[in-house]
Amino acid sequence: MKVINIEDIPFEEVKGFEGVRKQVVIGPSEGSNEIVLRCFSIDPGASSPYHTHDFPHLIKVESGEGFIKDADGKNINLRAGKYVYVNDNEKHSITNTCSDILSFICIVPIRGENPR
Amino acid sequence: MKVINIEDIPFEEVKGFEGVRKQVVIGPSEGSNEIVLRCFSIDPGASSPYHTHDFPHLIKVESGEGFIKDADGKNINLRAGKYVYVNDNEKHSITNTCSDILSFICIVPIRGENPR
Repeated sequence: MKVINIEDIPFEEVKGFEGVRKQVVIGPSEGSNEIVLRCFSIDPGASSPYHTHDFPHLIKVESGEGFIKDADGKNINLRAGKYVYVNDNEKHSITNTCSDILSFICIVPIRGENPR
Repeated sequence: MKVINIEDIPFEEVKGFEGVRKQVVIGPSEGSNEIVLRCFSIDPGASSPYHTHDFPHLIKVESGEGFIKDADGKNINLRAGKYVYVNDNEKHSITNTCSDILSFICIVPIRGENPR
């Protein structure tokens, strides 16, 4: 068992995701080799790329406001407390529309954190 | 893609867990067949049983205060914002020590939500 304070987890830049930082809160370093829980912080005005991959996302917005673009190009508003499920191979991007950090936890199977 | 408001998710009693209710926030009904995100609410003074199972827990405390008992019987304090990783087959229970609901999200592989 491991109890974790997110303040102790370093931020990592995310390659190809400008204005986006990641903390791996629960992952292999904590003994979790099946599921990984990351926390993403998106700067005001920044977005994750409109992209797809062969693993799902289980998301909970922690703070800030923005939107997620779905596979049809439709933008759906996000704010703290909203949950989102993104299917495997479903195109998506997340944009921060507020003046503070947009932060959200994003849970993936291990293949999503160590892409093959 | 599915955007979910937790207020729309019904509470379920948890068999054998008195004073504990569960919401399945992201699971098979949302299209997630690999990982399930549940939210648990524990009443003041109540606990989950001291138990074990063959799947891990990735936990984030959402509100309230309490403790988690580890496999050695040691109690580790929990409060909003703490994350916990519980290994497969590691004995644990969670107790609410405050006067409000203790709520936490608890992520499991699908076999943890539909035990075999």
